[in-house]
Amino acid sequence: MLYEISEKTMKLVSEGKKVIKLNLGDPDQPTPNEIIEAAYEAMKQGKTKYSSSAGEKKLREELANLHKVSADNVVISTGSKWAIFILMYLLLKKGGNVVIPTLYWTAYELTAKSLGAETRFLRTEIDLEWKIDIEKLKDLVDRRTRLIILNNPNNPTSKVIDEKTLDEIVQIAKDKGITILSDEVYSDISFVETKSVLDCGNDHILVKSFSKTYAMTGWRVGYAVMGKGLAEKMVKLNQITLTNVPVFIQEAALKALELREEIANRIREEYRRRADLACEILSKTKVRFSKPDAPFHLFPKYEGLDSERFALDLLDEGVAITPGTAFGEYREHFRIALTVSEEEIELGLKKICEALK
Amino acid sequence: MLYEISEKTMKLVSEGKKVIKLNLGDPDQPTPNEIIEAAYEAMKQGKTKYSSSAGEKKLREELANLHKVSADNVVISTGSKWAIFILMYLLLKKGGNVVIPTLYWTAYELTAKSLGAETRFLRTEIDLEWKIDIEKLKDLVDRRTRLIILNNPNNPTSKVIDEKTLDEIVQIAKDKGITILSDEVYSDISFVETKSVLDCGNDHILVKSFSKTYAMTGWRVGYAVMGKGLAEKMVKLNQITLTNVPVFIQEAALKALELREEIANRIREEYRRRADLACEILSKTKVRFSKPDAPFHLFPKYEGLDSERFALDLLDEGVAITPGTAFGEYREHFRIALTVSEEEIELGLKKICEALK
Repeated sequence: MLYEISEKTMKLVSEGKKVIKLNLGDPDQPTPNEIIEAAYEAMKQGKTKYSSSAGEKKLREELANLHKVSADNVVISTGSKWAIFILMYLLLKKGGNVVIPTLYWTAYELTAKSLGAETRFLRTEIDLEWKIDIEKLKDLVDRRTRLIILNNPNNPTSKVIDEKTLDEIVQIAKDKGITILSDEVYSDISFVETKSVLDCGNDHILVKSFSKTYAMTGWRVGYAVMGKGLAEKMVKLNQITLTNVPVFIQEAALKALELREEIANRIREEYRRRADLACEILSKTKVRFSKPDAPFHLFPKYEGLDSERFALDLLDEGVAITPGTAFGEYREHFRIALTVSEEEIELGLKKICEALK
Repeated sequence: MLYEISEKTMKLVSEGKKVIKLNLGDPDQPTPNEIIEAAYEAMKQGKTKYSSSAGEKKLREELANLHKVSADNVVISTGSKWAIFILMYLLLKKGGNVVIPTLYWTAYELTAKSLGAETRFLRTEIDLEWKIDIEKLKDLVDRRTRLIILNNPNNPTSKVIDEKTLDEIVQIAKDKGITILSDEVYSDISFVETKSVLDCGNDHILVKSFSKTYAMTGWRVGYAVMGKGLAEKMVKLNQITLTNVPVFIQEAALKALELREEIANRIREEYRRRADLACEILSKTKVRFSKPDAPFHLFPKYEGLDSERFALDLLDEGVAITPGTAFGEYREHFRIALTVSEEEIELGLKKICEALK
């Protein structure tokens, strides 16, 4: 359904129709110029050769400083997705199951399926502010559980896991010898403090990306922090799959880190304004939603809604959204991505409100 | 041993010693300026967003024209390596074996091992001009054989498979329902005509790269041509692993294709001169070698040689080569990569000849 909406949107646009795209996971911001120039400089300097499958030393060291680990714990990856795939491959290829709280990013499930691993979902609900139920988690894990995948902050709920809950999840993982893979790609631009899995000890895996924090989605550069043994295995797999992330792209990432505060603050504030605006409009309707802790989605619920029908009808009115069914059994929900201008958000949400009347 | 030599080389260089690096698979040529400028232009135009996991339409169409297939048969990949890994994953993850003629590129074996697939090697010898023995191949394949991997032209022998042999291999594959994956990354700059597996029908897989033909090793862009069904499966895996090769890199690849004749001819002639020079020097020695059909290696044999010992001793003389053992049971052989200037080749080979006296 995600792809159906996106294809119909492209068709309408190609026919000359104006569509407000509240369905996109790709922000409207351009990559900052300094980052582009850094890549160009590196290319001109001949940084266009094969290089380390772990990533460039300087970039790994900077990231290690940031996360208070050693450079040996950091592996540069083709976006966060590659790190997630290859770490799931390493941890699940000999069997076992993976526990994933809903709502979850589709790639987790598809990867598990491709690897032939059993997936166990832990359902969360808007009524409980999307909190993970620790007792349910305890019931779900067993001795065949290899991995718990957290998405913190979450796409599409935009909620951050509170400290107490995270500590409890880590305790369960510790008791049962389970690895946590925490996908924290939105944490640097989160509106609230986000406790990282790395703040809970060195046994777990952090996955991060330059995509959202620095408007670098299409550059495909991310990284993962993990134990040295696992890092060595990931590097060996990088050697026979990717070789390396292009060095000029890693130089661009290094420049992004240098401008970290400035860029992340600007992008965070932009999303905060958009989120505030969207919440203000939605609060005047019968739609239920939980206030986002982070960019860049809202996942409201409307009692009795068939979100698939709604999304298709709304597209005819010139607004693209994603039905909740794209994320599992959430038919009464729909996802709004705040990846367009405030003007378009206002216009789009007004049309949504009208359509729901 | 490959990595031991390369690490010792780096150490010597960092200590200020001059080393002639005849051990590198990364050519000395810089990426042509026009290609760098095309990438920069694309970045400035905002081609820094998520895009199709199959690759950009224009690039796929150009490649389809080149290979006389449909764009649906072409998938853009992060270098040729990724295509090889993911196609082996798709074809071998349910078990079966893969047949690989020696000498082979290490990544084939490591990937098969990682996937838990059985590997069957078909040994070739310098005495038979590195030809694949068809009778041996017939004996080696069985009903569990899913894949035959060819490297044509071959690294490190630099031999091209003759037409008759290729036709016979294809016939065996047809009879037994086996897929051939043909890694032809050197074919565009080959000194002799190289018949592609695509010239033998549409049942097989061609893997190519921009790395060698256009001096773009570190850009990580390649492609594979295959049946539509398999292409769709590869695209689905790209969606959950890479998302896409950066669009600005695909624009650079498009520019490379535009300048194809000019760049490939220049690079081919450069390697031909280097190969002629190397053959001339070696022909005056007791070393046996077969004349290379393609860039950019020589794989000579010296009766009774312990190439590991030889490589380490030679490094002390300031020349780095790769011992034959890095490619299997070829202790009397060593690999010379012609990825440095003619001047350095001459100097390096003279030192090799002296050391062998």
